[in-house]
Amino acid sequence: GFLALRAPAMAKSKFEYVRSFETDDTCLRNCYIVVRLDGRNFHKFAEQHQFTKPNDERALGLMTRSARSVMEELEDIVIAYGQSDEYSFVFKRSSHWFKRRASKLMTHVASQFSSSYVFYWKDYFGDQELKYPPGFDGRVVLYPSNQNLRDYLSWRQADCHINNLYNTVFWTLVQKGGLTTSQAEERLRGTLAADKNEILFAEFNINYNNEPLLHRKGTALVWKKFDETMMKPVKRASEEQEKEVVVTRSRSRVVALHCDIIGDQFWQEHPEILEGES
Amino acid sequence: GFLALRAPAMAKSKFEYVRSFETDDTCLRNCYIVVRLDGRNFHKFAEQHQFTKPNDERALGLMTRSARSVMEELEDIVIAYGQSDEYSFVFKRSSHWFKRRASKLMTHVASQFSSSYVFYWKDYFGDQELKYPPGFDGRVVLYPSNQNLRDYLSWRQADCHINNLYNTVFWTLVQKGGLTTSQAEERLRGTLAADKNEILFAEFNINYNNEPLLHRKGTALVWKKFDETMMKPVKRASEEQEKEVVVTRSRSRVVALHCDIIGDQFWQEHPEILEGES
Amino acid sequence: GFLALRAPAMAKSKFEYVRSFETDDTCLRNCYIVVRLDGRNFHKFAEQHQFTKPNDERALGLMTRSARSVMEELEDIVIAYGQSDEYSFVFKRSSHWFKRRASKLMTHVASQFSSSYVFYWKDYFGDQELKYPPGFDGRVVLYPSNQNLRDYLSWRQADCHINNLYNTVFWTLVQKGGLTTSQAEERLRGTLAADKNEILFAEFNINYNNEPLLHRKGTALVWKKFDETMMKPVKRASEEQEKEVVVTRSRSRVVALHCDIIGDQFWQEHPEILEGES
Amino acid sequence: GFLALRAPAMAKSKFEYVRSFETDDTCLRNCYIVVRLDGRNFHKFAEQHQFTKPNDERALGLMTRSARSVMEELEDIVIAYGQSDEYSFVFKRSSHWFKRRASKLMTHVASQFSSSYVFYWKDYFGDQELKYPPGFDGRVVLYPSNQNLRDYLSWRQADCHINNLYNTVFWTLVQKGGLTTSQAEERLRGTLAADKNEILFAEFNINYNNEPLLHRKGTALVWKKFDETMMKPVKRASEEQEKEVVVTRSRSRVVALHCDIIGDQFWQEHPEILEGES
Repeated sequence: GFLALRAPAMAKSKFEYVRSFETDDTCLRNCYIVVRLDGRNFHKFAEQHQFTKPNDERALGLMTRSARSVMEELEDIVIAYGQSDEYSFVFKRSSHWFKRRASKLMTHVASQFSSSYVFYWKDYFGDQELKYPPGFDGRVVLYPSNQNLRDYLSWRQADCHINNLYNTVFWTLVQKGGLTTSQAEERLRGTLAADKNEILFAEFNINYNNEPLLHRKGTALVWKKFDETMMKPVKRASEEQEKEVVVTRSRSRVVALHCDIIGDQFWQEHPEILEGES
Repeated sequence: GFLALRAPAMAKSKFEYVRSFETDDTCLRNCYIVVRLDGRNFHKFAEQHQFTKPNDERALGLMTRSARSVMEELEDIVIAYGQSDEYSFVFKRSSHWFKRRASKLMTHVASQFSSSYVFYWKDYFGDQELKYPPGFDGRVVLYPSNQNLRDYLSWRQADCHINNLYNTVFWTLVQKGGLTTSQAEERLRGTLAADKNEILFAEFNINYNNEPLLHRKGTALVWKKFDETMMKPVKRASEEQEKEVVVTRSRSRVVALHCDIIGDQFWQEHPEILEGES
Repeated sequence: GFLALRAPAMAKSKFEYVRSFETDDTCLRNCYIVVRLDGRNFHKFAEQHQFTKPNDERALGLMTRSARSVMEELEDIVIAYGQSDEYSFVFKRSSHWFKRRASKLMTHVASQFSSSYVFYWKDYFGDQELKYPPGFDGRVVLYPSNQNLRDYLSWRQADCHINNLYNTVFWTLVQKGGLTTSQAEERLRGTLAADKNEILFAEFNINYNNEPLLHRKGTALVWKKFDETMMKPVKRASEEQEKEVVVTRSRSRVVALHCDIIGDQFWQEHPEILEGES
Repeated sequence: GFLALRAPAMAKSKFEYVRSFETDDTCLRNCYIVVRLDGRNFHKFAEQHQFTKPNDERALGLMTRSARSVMEELEDIVIAYGQSDEYSFVFKRSSHWFKRRASKLMTHVASQFSSSYVFYWKDYFGDQELKYPPGFDGRVVLYPSNQNLRDYLSWRQADCHINNLYNTVFWTLVQKGGLTTSQAEERLRGTLAADKNEILFAEFNINYNNEPLLHRKGTALVWKKFDETMMKPVKRASEEQEKEVVVTRSRSRVVALHCDIIGDQFWQEHPEILEGES
């Protein structure tokens, strides 16, 4: 019924009882609601679309573009964090969007992200064809305290670091070291972070800490307030002619940050993300 | 980590405890799992993309194309039913896909449908530009018995009928009768189905029962088995030369039906959809 | 506020928001709701109250008396099944008692059973003192089909059989065979049902099939309709004197059965327990 | 199987699949778990057992005795609060008792409370007979923050105050003022707290603030540490004779408090109840 008003409700049909089988999945109040999306079979998707390894700037850019679309179209998302083929969206703890119904929140995120991914594909991949529509799955997790939420985001960023270091060394061994993927895997078996840094530095003269922050830290999307200044024509009753007056409006926009979100500094610089725990 | 194997699990980080906040949302076994999607703000979406009224063949076709993509990419969907800007997907009662986790099932459906909607847009709307990525929300409902499931689908088809009859008369009054939308709304207030049929017939010589089945009945997607026959070269040990042999494989494909699914006939003709209730 | 009407609601306090943290735990409709209770630390409880082994008639009688109290005080329980220190209660699939809220159903069952256990203790244990108030825990499980429900009850009765056979042989070996409990355990390790029957028969001349049905089959509680006939004084307008008239009322009472509930016969004889699956 | 070891698991029966219908009801971590019990039909229960009005000391004492039994037998309950025929039990936010499964927690509380109520009846009602086993229902609510938990308990104590004030005036009007219950109800309709205080003071010379704290504030049960000192015989190798030595052990016991729990003072004096929110 999207082409006219829905037909006014008449006598209920005998089938209508089936509505009572729907169950309530309201999220507990005063908890952060995290929706995390993961790409479905993205290993194959990356292969088929010739993603560069270990990181494809276009793919990461498209992920973040889609995440921005989610933040802008949906309500109450205070921070999003993404790396590789995953993105987490955090609804503020006091949110009442869609009555905090878990199914509504997660399907809205999954849907908006997925349609945006295809919609903005050409902005990042240009003429390279998208071969088939990709899928993302989602889940909802609740975090009762600020510390729990920070630990969740820290967990994802630590995961980003671990995987990116591994992938950086792995593909360097393959691309510059001439190893097969099996040989590279074998070479890295049981190595610690320090060992991997050492391989990069000693054998390939690469200082991992100089690798792009985007790759090492992932992407955090947050809202930033800014003042929008514009000229507006005004005509006072006492005056004959219109004058242009400077008008300033406070607005918010999504900005992408590639920085540490584990330590305290990030949270001190962005005090608006966390709410008091009352 | 979609560009290489995920880094092998090392010592667990101190953040990893946050995983234990995930809750189990397994669907009760031996129930049909229905995921229904609804377009978000599709009234506005329809306006902005100049959908024809009361039904836009392109829009309906694209919905069904996207639903077909969902059925083909996901597992265990035995029937889907769509009308207007909604589509319901029914997973078989014995399905174990993704361990029957509700969040996985509904986000997969929402994601695949949404990315497909954008991906196949041009196949239905040609050069007409898609102005922004659309959103769909979803929900999961369980039905324990065959009768409950049939009643659910009957409920949606009855809804299709009620809305399509209303919209058909409404837009006929506007487009052919010259009424404003307010006048049409007023004219239809309190009318019963018989009254609406009479308006169409008496004033516009339209027999509602001759309207397209697609509009009146919506679309049911089901799997149909068919035999694929092909020639295959075979060489027997005793023979010198290869021979071509006819090989027949049983395969399934999704077919779209526009027919009554409320009565018994449809279910007798498609006995594979419902399972025994044991 | 149980000593007067609750004070009429005035202005809501600022604390009242905490009610919104309650979550809905409605059981899916059209499913059987099973609440199973299990004794807490009943091994110790049995020791401390000198239960006879392998079966204590008084303890089994008290369990069933308490279960009967649950069936009579609560609504919509169509069958209960008990063995050892556990009892299962089945609410009919169409029940709307307490809006099918799982927490209400299971706590009512646990509470009524527990208070009854202490209340009726002296009827079964006479002067033997109850040393401390016992505890029972509970759970709720939903079954969508008649077959699932029957299989659940069969599972419990099969469990009764397996445990009773084991315990019968075990305690016979100890009490009549002079083995220590460790020796008896060792002797039974790895034995099949046939082996255990053979030990009983060959060594102790006990035919397990002659053991009491109460022990081998447990107890099923069902409702039985009966006609209650009574004399009632009636005075007709046309007559001078009162006459006594026979009045028959249809009533139901709980009866205890010790019989096989796995096969079809029980269900054919009690067709009122299962409902159609519509 | 409480009279012997459970029979060792053999081949699984074909019925065992029914276990997979159990669903997980784990409570979200890092939240306080509150189980509240309410008497079932206690208005009738109070009538039948001649509870004095507006407060029956015996009944209140028995409720608290039963609650103490729950705190002592179960684990991780840090505070309980009761008034009238209800009692709330708070499990600490870090509790892992029974894996935080809601059904286990609430049925254990309901069961232990109910069996204790009957068990300890005679300690409070002496020779007065308990006519039938009473029932209590329960529910589980989660509170993510310390403030939420305090607000929950404040809500219950504010409820205690409102109802006790109402009942005190109501029964004074009936018992001393000679009104019928209908007249008393009518008299109180629409009155505010100040009006009720005024009726008590002006007409009956009763200062509500001098009413017992037990009635006005309800009962809070908390754990108090104390040192248990005892003499213990010790024999050192170098010495010939045993000596008695003073040994001090730190132990905890449940104490009942009748005081304000809404303000900060209570929480400052009992800092061990609330945990940090990390």
